[in-house]
Amino acid sequence: MAFDHTFLVDALGEEQVSTGESAREEHSADWATDAEWVTPEPVLPDVVVYPTTTEEVAAVLAGATERDVPVTPYAAGTSLEGNPVPAHGGISMNLTRMDEVLDVRPGDFQIDVEPGVMGPTIEEVAGKHGLSFPPLPSSGDISTIGGMIANGASGMQTVKYGEVADWVLELEVVLADGSVITAGSKAVKTSSGYNLRDLLVGSEGTLGVVTRATLELAGRPRQIKGGRVIFSNLADASAAVTDVVQSGVDVAKIELIDAESARISNAYTGADLPDAPMVFLEFHADHGIDEEVAFCQSIVESHDPVAFELAPEERMDDLWEARKDLAFALATYDPEMRPLHPGDVTVPISEYGPLMEYAKSVGEEYGLMVPCFGHAGDGNIHYSVMVDPDDEEELARGEEVYAAIVERAIEVGGTATGEHGIGQGKREYMVAEHGEASVEAMRRIKRALDPTDTLNPGKIFPETADGERVRDRTATGNDLS
Amino acid sequence: MAFDHTFLVDALGEEQVSTGESAREEHSADWATDAEWVTPEPVLPDVVVYPTTTEEVAAVLAGATERDVPVTPYAAGTSLEGNPVPAHGGISMNLTRMDEVLDVRPGDFQIDVEPGVMGPTIEEVAGKHGLSFPPLPSSGDISTIGGMIANGASGMQTVKYGEVADWVLELEVVLADGSVITAGSKAVKTSSGYNLRDLLVGSEGTLGVVTRATLELAGRPRQIKGGRVIFSNLADASAAVTDVVQSGVDVAKIELIDAESARISNAYTGADLPDAPMVFLEFHADHGIDEEVAFCQSIVESHDPVAFELAPEERMDDLWEARKDLAFALATYDPEMRPLHPGDVTVPISEYGPLMEYAKSVGEEYGLMVPCFGHAGDGNIHYSVMVDPDDEEELARGEEVYAAIVERAIEVGGTATGEHGIGQGKREYMVAEHGEASVEAMRRIKRALDPTDTLNPGKIFPETADGERVRDRTATGNDLS
Repeated sequence: MAFDHTFLVDALGEEQVSTGESAREEHSADWATDAEWVTPEPVLPDVVVYPTTTEEVAAVLAGATERDVPVTPYAAGTSLEGNPVPAHGGISMNLTRMDEVLDVRPGDFQIDVEPGVMGPTIEEVAGKHGLSFPPLPSSGDISTIGGMIANGASGMQTVKYGEVADWVLELEVVLADGSVITAGSKAVKTSSGYNLRDLLVGSEGTLGVVTRATLELAGRPRQIKGGRVIFSNLADASAAVTDVVQSGVDVAKIELIDAESARISNAYTGADLPDAPMVFLEFHADHGIDEEVAFCQSIVESHDPVAFELAPEERMDDLWEARKDLAFALATYDPEMRPLHPGDVTVPISEYGPLMEYAKSVGEEYGLMVPCFGHAGDGNIHYSVMVDPDDEEELARGEEVYAAIVERAIEVGGTATGEHGIGQGKREYMVAEHGEASVEAMRRIKRALDPTDTLNPGKIFPETADGERVRDRTATGNDLS
Repeated sequence: MAFDHTFLVDALGEEQVSTGESAREEHSADWATDAEWVTPEPVLPDVVVYPTTTEEVAAVLAGATERDVPVTPYAAGTSLEGNPVPAHGGISMNLTRMDEVLDVRPGDFQIDVEPGVMGPTIEEVAGKHGLSFPPLPSSGDISTIGGMIANGASGMQTVKYGEVADWVLELEVVLADGSVITAGSKAVKTSSGYNLRDLLVGSEGTLGVVTRATLELAGRPRQIKGGRVIFSNLADASAAVTDVVQSGVDVAKIELIDAESARISNAYTGADLPDAPMVFLEFHADHGIDEEVAFCQSIVESHDPVAFELAPEERMDDLWEARKDLAFALATYDPEMRPLHPGDVTVPISEYGPLMEYAKSVGEEYGLMVPCFGHAGDGNIHYSVMVDPDDEEELARGEEVYAAIVERAIEVGGTATGEHGIGQGKREYMVAEHGEASVEAMRRIKRALDPTDTLNPGKIFPETADGERVRDRTATGNDLS
């Protein structure tokens, strides 16, 4: 080990510090980086710590900053851009033992949680009061709230209810020097000082470690209905989605899968469905849901659907099966044809159809299958470039296809990453998307709050030729060479 | 003048630079500070500039930072905490000549505007496409979008649609050194890099000057209804509001005025209404508005209302008159009894009733009238401590009442300022609300983006004993003593 880790044992005790091979291995990768054909590679931390209190998090960070040892927060490891990979080694800080629901105040629609609380626990506690946490991501069942906040997550219901960020009221956060701050307010609105809360949400553990979150909850809708529409071609399907959004239909979910995704999904589920583009719908309302569904249907009908099926809440799972199992279907489709890291671009809705077409055409041009799906109502396209992982040339071609789609999304006013974050995988697009001056402003903020680049180094900021970290050269106390 | 302003004339031309007495006077105060009995006092800038392009804004800022001259952005001057008062003199930057609507993309629900565009222009352009900008503040008719963004504004419809911040997609911002950044995305969701956008919104021109904003627009609701409920006492009225919110009624506006506000308003409008607490309601829906209104009414009825009246959209103005004219009624009520600076605290909804009671009781205790009103559904209380402006002792008592209410709001988990910002008036509450470590984190961000404290010095951060500005002592190039 490159440093003496006794300060960790002194602060946390033996039980909460591990240098064992399996613990280090477990914290070396996330879902994106654990496939061997995907770069970047997993990186072993020197040591894994399991704090249980804010004070312990603060002690680790203060000690690590003093000793110039990197600290990378880790939770469920379900991220998809290498976000919690300890790229520069050091300490992996596992936050899953901080998993208490601290308080629930149904009259204020608020719940206070520690960062390791998982999505289903929030839903269970909220559900006892007839409430819900609407912005959970698709991985919400197996992800922690701390990870969702760190990565700026969103999900299927974002089209109606917004992102996780929109449901965070207040955060307790430990900064790199061990100081503990509170960001945001338990009041539903405030204009008091800088909005540190939304700066910290989505900062991927590079600015601080969330140790407590006050979340807003929502009442559950009184009426729920689901729908599935099958189209004969992608142009009709994406035009229908765009038209539904532009007409202002109140949808709670609107997902599209293309014909290739449908084929892969149908093979996996064994469903008797055509291998054709499909749109999945969900509607929430307190009154008049049938009018809203009818309004939606009238719009969809003008785009030549092959079939439009509706289901009450209790039969919705069947209708949605092809969408719900898609990620697993893709991952296990064919050992000789595996998905590259999952694509996640988002564009203004008017660019949604054209970008879908572009993704398919660039795949054809390069002779690769590129199944597309995603949270269509937000203009969010997920795509998997399918490659033979043993074929170096095909892997390289796959990377070109992957990159071309990201670049096009940025060109048309979109973002390189709708909900997966930058992590390691999207760093090279930061300047193209935001411009050099904006990235430099982010760097200045990083240096102001974490001058030694202790927290999650090697993420978000574009890699430099010499692999340099984002250091404040005027920071005192350590040799930053 | 303390500095040679020829660099401004060189950059902008004579027409866009003024050192005239009336221009300087006009930029010395906002709505809060132009009353002579209110502290802090107006401060004259040395010079006023009127840029018309991003490049001109950048030239002024780069030149001013180089010369260590403060720059304070100014727009319509409707703010209420001295936010655009040039507290340290220097340059007042008037942005009202940048008032073009640059583009509207109804298919994406987006509009691109310059910072000097006023609320009604946005509504007019959006309205041509059946769209609207829902979060406009009460002063939206006479305020600029740049001012609303800078101050983190919100309004009557925030209870349903959120704050201005929630409707800003992308900003072009000039930093103190003249660099131009883009923050946010035209995609409706992104997890790409730090959220500079929401850091800049509400930063009151202390971190950068907004030169372009892409706003999101909303479809107009198909059904609108209004309501007014009269209660015999404040406890019933605030309990009804709390119950409506906690029951999840879908209200677009829910405003409360107390009996004193009602009396002042009735005197002003000449309306034949009791001087009693009233709640004003507005409902928006696409379907089923009558069911929602009935649901609301069933909840309100359990709190002993004296009268519950409903109105269709076209007759709503009459019903709402007492609320709409209240600010003017208060300001002109009695020359010998004037409102101190307007209070604006927000608390979790469960604390709303108790805080209203507290505000009334502390007023009684100090023998002063404290009319309360505000955006009740958000837990937002506006209050005016009425004082004889010529009575020094009463002014001092008034300040005590004002402060006691802010302090109580913070104690119960609320914020010192729901929508007026910190400006000069609320600086002393920053540490009480956020804690010293959080305020220090804000200071570090300020120093990182504006090391010379060029932009709007003397705002947000607590005043120091020596009136020191927030300087980065390591910043080079200027004498920062």
